[in-house]
Amino acid sequence: MALDLSPLLGARRDDTVGTMVRGLIGSEILRIAGEIRELVTQGKQVCNLTVGDFSPREFPIPASLGDAISTALKAGETNYPPSDGVLTLRQAVIRFYERALGLKYPLESVLIAGGARPVIYAIFRAVVDAGETVIYPVPSWNNNHYSYMVGAKAVEVVTSPEHGFMPTVAQLAPHLPEARLLCLCSPLNPTGTMISAEALRDIGQRVVEENRKRETQGRKPLIVMYDQIYWTLTFGQAKHVTPLELVPELAPYTVFVDGISKAFAATGVRVGWAVGPPSIISRMKDVLGHVGAWAPKAEQVAVARFLDDVPAVASYLETMKRRVDERLVALHQGFSAMKAAGLPVRSIEPQGAIYLSVQFDLMGKAGLKTNDDIRKLLLDKAGFALVPFQAFGLKADTGWFRLSVGAVSMEEIKAALPRVEAVLREVVGK
Amino acid sequence: MALDLSPLLGARRDDTVGTMVRGLIGSEILRIAGEIRELVTQGKQVCNLTVGDFSPREFPIPASLGDAISTALKAGETNYPPSDGVLTLRQAVIRFYERALGLKYPLESVLIAGGARPVIYAIFRAVVDAGETVIYPVPSWNNNHYSYMVGAKAVEVVTSPEHGFMPTVAQLAPHLPEARLLCLCSPLNPTGTMISAEALRDIGQRVVEENRKRETQGRKPLIVMYDQIYWTLTFGQAKHVTPLELVPELAPYTVFVDGISKAFAATGVRVGWAVGPPSIISRMKDVLGHVGAWAPKAEQVAVARFLDDVPAVASYLETMKRRVDERLVALHQGFSAMKAAGLPVRSIEPQGAIYLSVQFDLMGKAGLKTNDDIRKLLLDKAGFALVPFQAFGLKADTGWFRLSVGAVSMEEIKAALPRVEAVLREVVGK
Repeated sequence: MALDLSPLLGARRDDTVGTMVRGLIGSEILRIAGEIRELVTQGKQVCNLTVGDFSPREFPIPASLGDAISTALKAGETNYPPSDGVLTLRQAVIRFYERALGLKYPLESVLIAGGARPVIYAIFRAVVDAGETVIYPVPSWNNNHYSYMVGAKAVEVVTSPEHGFMPTVAQLAPHLPEARLLCLCSPLNPTGTMISAEALRDIGQRVVEENRKRETQGRKPLIVMYDQIYWTLTFGQAKHVTPLELVPELAPYTVFVDGISKAFAATGVRVGWAVGPPSIISRMKDVLGHVGAWAPKAEQVAVARFLDDVPAVASYLETMKRRVDERLVALHQGFSAMKAAGLPVRSIEPQGAIYLSVQFDLMGKAGLKTNDDIRKLLLDKAGFALVPFQAFGLKADTGWFRLSVGAVSMEEIKAALPRVEAVLREVVGK
Repeated sequence: MALDLSPLLGARRDDTVGTMVRGLIGSEILRIAGEIRELVTQGKQVCNLTVGDFSPREFPIPASLGDAISTALKAGETNYPPSDGVLTLRQAVIRFYERALGLKYPLESVLIAGGARPVIYAIFRAVVDAGETVIYPVPSWNNNHYSYMVGAKAVEVVTSPEHGFMPTVAQLAPHLPEARLLCLCSPLNPTGTMISAEALRDIGQRVVEENRKRETQGRKPLIVMYDQIYWTLTFGQAKHVTPLELVPELAPYTVFVDGISKAFAATGVRVGWAVGPPSIISRMKDVLGHVGAWAPKAEQVAVARFLDDVPAVASYLETMKRRVDERLVALHQGFSAMKAAGLPVRSIEPQGAIYLSVQFDLMGKAGLKTNDDIRKLLLDKAGFALVPFQAFGLKADTGWFRLSVGAVSMEEIKAALPRVEAVLREVVGK
């Protein structure tokens, strides 16, 4: 007879845990996901644009990558990987960056991790002391949570649709002298927009100037985290740029966040990497070694093989981009048509990632007071599930939302748009 | 032409990183591994007993587990797992614990992570505030590093071979009133010894008493981390015990650390779990969600299937235990014979895990002053690679070493023992 522990575990007591976790905010998106699951269980049709993930039915991983994992497992790639990653994968990442981004790094600049999140966490832990300042734009993904976890002082720069939700050097400049870490991401989660070469060059030059000054003062430099996990997913004329191709002097201060999660629809395969100056990379390795956030070894071996298969990567990305793009375009065109018809909605032309920024200008109409009111209305009446920018650190209720297309079919989008239009017409009485 | 970043990265500057990581100590074992690699490259025969890992040739993962991962990949299990783990795996862990340990937990007590290390890290992060006290025995694995990372005050209780390197309630009692986290591990890495039911019951009852007192004072309870990652690997008469079967009232305060890494020789597959009170487990989930230290999804699905295949698990463990045991026994018998021959060496009868504790009583002989002197002598002259207890937090040079058998064959052990004996005879002049 087993000992039944349920009655012994007692009441849920929050005093058993520490101060940090009691203030840690869970994912807003997961809360919304719970609501959606309930509606779906009730048999309701929902076009789910909430999760920054892929439906494997719509977006499977590359078949040869899956096969290579199976082969590696059979070959016994099942013991500990080296703490900085399997050598062949680190080398493959170097070749990938040289080939595709024109950046040639030494081996000790590459660290493999169990996804891109561990890379971000390791940068925060390795760079920032409690009380130091982290600066980042909002909306952006989870920089607020990482800043909180390491006890940093967060300086949030609220961006605008006019600048594609990207920070400008004018906005950042007043805060740079006190900052220890500057977080940039392009293509940006949640907006699907990309930073321009001009804006990035301006920011990069200002960081270099700042660090020249600090060098003479013997102060710690300002580090740039450049999250480019979506860099292979760009559309139309949009071109991804790295800070280093524009301002090479940034090299000692820039750490890239990257991996296979989004490029190859492999969020559950858990392989990411950091590329940056060895002095920071080696400390991130120490952090991740103790945390144990390593990528599984067979997956590392397989990704190394896949990345080196240049035609397979190109062919997969072509299909992937076409399928993401057609979804984003269908939504953007749908909203543009509604806007042209005088309905209070607009979206920003998709540039990159798997996201579309959409604004519903409904505040004050039909008793709608917050983004969350609008979200609930669209979910309940149109079966249209999206995430307000509040989930990405924005405080103001501006009517802006993230639409993520990785888990929906074209049919679902086409079926949903008329439902959204009907709700908008009802609200504004058209 | 790619931009060559090597000359731009500049000198390695330690001032780019934060205070915590500058004090973080990397793995002593990895440093030793580097020395061994060099010797092997030189063509030297080395019996490598250093890494707490498996050679996939000697210890492959269960074939049906590997197959199940491939099947799950083909079935599209490639997107994000839920942040607390795939439901079927959490359910399978509950059945596994009920069946094999006699402990019946509710679903919300189980959290899946990307290995056992992330579980340990999450316990420290979720429970301990900076400045609070963590108490653990030495030698033990990495509790010193985790305590350092969260800024805890570490109280180290030095154990003795007479008590099988396990702490006694008498040793712990004076420190319990100020402690926030007590770390226990059995079977113990690095010693291969196990705590007795009596010792564990005494400790558990004292913790319950302490927490009753704190309850009346409105103070945070003392939490017990019970690392039982090696619990399936026990030998001879040794029987694994859990604190809860002895002192059920410990349930609200005990978190188990566990996973497939050691039981199924799957260190590189990255699937571990925590089992404990939901109030702590849910906060650990929040921490690991942001850290992103998740187990890959296909592996989670596959482990769920494998754990439920009771005959396959039993059959694999039988073979695994036999093969680990024959290695431990061969080493133990070898050292016992040397001891019987009057040589200054002794080992402790293997009880669990993949480790043997061996003491070389050579201090002061032939100029040997530290454990590391002895380690180097055995490595250079006998091609016998082991890890001193210093790598596990012990300060004193007592001549004790950890021998790990997961990566060696019986032939390597048989070939190495005479080399060790020859070195010992030379040192003592016999």
